[in-house]
Amino acid sequence: MKLEYQLKEKSKKNMARLGEIKYNGLTYETPMFMPVGTNATVKTLAPEELKEIGTGIILANTYHLWLKPGEDVVNEAGGLHKFMNYDGPILTDSGGFQVFSLAKPKDITEEGVHFKNFENGDKLFLTPEKSIEIQMKLQSDIVMSFDECVKWPSTYDYVKESVDRTLRWALRGKQVFKSPNQMLFGIVQGGEYEDLRKKCAEALVEMNFDGYSIGGTSVGEDKKTMYKMVGYATKYLPEDKLRYLMGVGDPIDLIENVMRGVDLFDCVSPTRLARHGHAYTGHGKINLKNSKYKEDFTPVEEGCNCYACKSYTKAYIKHLLSTSETFGARLLSIHNIYFLTKLMEEIRKNIKTDTLEEFRDKFILDYYGEGYEYK
Amino acid sequence: MKLEYQLKEKSKKNMARLGEIKYNGLTYETPMFMPVGTNATVKTLAPEELKEIGTGIILANTYHLWLKPGEDVVNEAGGLHKFMNYDGPILTDSGGFQVFSLAKPKDITEEGVHFKNFENGDKLFLTPEKSIEIQMKLQSDIVMSFDECVKWPSTYDYVKESVDRTLRWALRGKQVFKSPNQMLFGIVQGGEYEDLRKKCAEALVEMNFDGYSIGGTSVGEDKKTMYKMVGYATKYLPEDKLRYLMGVGDPIDLIENVMRGVDLFDCVSPTRLARHGHAYTGHGKINLKNSKYKEDFTPVEEGCNCYACKSYTKAYIKHLLSTSETFGARLLSIHNIYFLTKLMEEIRKNIKTDTLEEFRDKFILDYYGEGYEYK
Repeated sequence: MKLEYQLKEKSKKNMARLGEIKYNGLTYETPMFMPVGTNATVKTLAPEELKEIGTGIILANTYHLWLKPGEDVVNEAGGLHKFMNYDGPILTDSGGFQVFSLAKPKDITEEGVHFKNFENGDKLFLTPEKSIEIQMKLQSDIVMSFDECVKWPSTYDYVKESVDRTLRWALRGKQVFKSPNQMLFGIVQGGEYEDLRKKCAEALVEMNFDGYSIGGTSVGEDKKTMYKMVGYATKYLPEDKLRYLMGVGDPIDLIENVMRGVDLFDCVSPTRLARHGHAYTGHGKINLKNSKYKEDFTPVEEGCNCYACKSYTKAYIKHLLSTSETFGARLLSIHNIYFLTKLMEEIRKNIKTDTLEEFRDKFILDYYGEGYEYK
Repeated sequence: MKLEYQLKEKSKKNMARLGEIKYNGLTYETPMFMPVGTNATVKTLAPEELKEIGTGIILANTYHLWLKPGEDVVNEAGGLHKFMNYDGPILTDSGGFQVFSLAKPKDITEEGVHFKNFENGDKLFLTPEKSIEIQMKLQSDIVMSFDECVKWPSTYDYVKESVDRTLRWALRGKQVFKSPNQMLFGIVQGGEYEDLRKKCAEALVEMNFDGYSIGGTSVGEDKKTMYKMVGYATKYLPEDKLRYLMGVGDPIDLIENVMRGVDLFDCVSPTRLARHGHAYTGHGKINLKNSKYKEDFTPVEEGCNCYACKSYTKAYIKHLLSTSETFGARLLSIHNIYFLTKLMEEIRKNIKTDTLEEFRDKFILDYYGEGYEYK
């Protein structure tokens, strides 16, 4: 079945929107945070745990699955859903971000990108067509166009040249995309230059994608620049289609970018932080490895209803981390994904009452304390 | 509450026994396999998963918990059950095995054992009294006496001297054990020498422990020698009390030693094998890392009703192992513990019908194929 999106409500004070995704008999609300399952598994967690947390779409990485186990294996398994036993919606990225961040050295040509497998040094070549073909075989529900993720800062001239190529790549990908049950998203690049973001967004809209992603953020820029880039993109995107901000998951960034019209977010942070012993709380991140938690028999966050907080103490989780027991990372992954999922729920409530700005200010005060500045 | 044991039925053909453990409102049947939760967590698993598998008692390691987080922390948490969120029965070992296997160099005196912390080199000293005191603070349900685990082979003279010391240590431990809700087990040592096993068992029975363990096996001896040692011990133990064979978990050893009168087993094998990609099946162990499973979309074992086999394929688990995703070890841990738990269920059924020997022969044929010899 194909995923369906419907815009339901818009804020009168900012660009925030409420929407609904229907998929496989269930309805999910947007804006939404999507946990990342790089290798067709959200690290340390079972699909049932994600359902208990209340997540919706999860993300899987095309680059990683292309290399292992290979898209043909996943396809023969019956697609990603069957392969990983997850019947909720799945989004795949294009592999582009990994090619540009993990695989070096690289050689960008009009045809595609030549690079080396980061594990074994094998020479690889990824093209817009190849990326779409892999994603069709993976049978995800939302497919990304292959784009160039430009680092920040980059010169106007370079970004301009890159946007043109990304647009040609988007068109080439769209031409090979033939899949009645999948959605295909175009990716808005353009760095921090409004005219380039505008040009990219408008050209993609002209091609009529099923939804639009915003790329080229979280690549070294400060928060103000990120928010600016997002605003430059959403401004030129149609209201009736999903907007997905790629790779962004810092709590404050979720709030700020919802206010700029974003519906979907993904980030490895909740699980990566968990593996390093960190937990989100309403009063900022805490490091459970800290010796002060050795005899702290309270939950990670008082009042939190996640499985970890309902049944375990900081002292126990600290002990698990100290002894390298993976159950510790598992408990913190549950807590962190739950935290972001609940934050999105709060965000949606505040869109309904159009109180998102007040919510943001209160959140910042609780999370960072007095004197927070966007950096 | 204190755990209660009742012998229910005995084989007429061998020493196998059926019994019941009552604990916290639930009844568990023996013979039973106990998963090991070294650091107060059965590696990669949540307590709920153990319950779903259908395990009963779990084991925790005194040595490890003494060093991290320390018995006082566990005690302040309200004991092991609260600390690790497990309301089923918990058995703790004495720390003796770890002192003799992990910690070197060591110096055995009448008073106790001097050794070094295997992680940081700190000098440590463990005595029979200290071991019991730690276990009382841990608040496990079954406490082990501190013993010397003698390696195999050892000379008659050395084992004799060691058994005498183990008996003096057992008495010293018993004298400081004051805990209405815990059971205290004595440990039968004596190597492969029947008169020493007999002497040890009879002396311990004289001291009247709540149950009896059999130690000094799985220390390098062949299977025939192990079975002989077990038989030398159970022969002299009272019928109305639990017998626990320490550190033994190879499927065939479970069957053979049940036939020699053992009720309880523990072993790290199911979780350790899982971490290395191995799974038990009725046709022997298989290594899921093997490339032949790359496109094998069947479960680890056809007909197995564990969570892993019901929802995932060999190909997926192989992929998880290839990408170092801990969910792979988690799925195989579930399968392996389930396998041994179901094996114990089959063993109990065959005690009831007194067909354990036929069951063993069939199991050997299926598991090892023709021509199996005990080594």
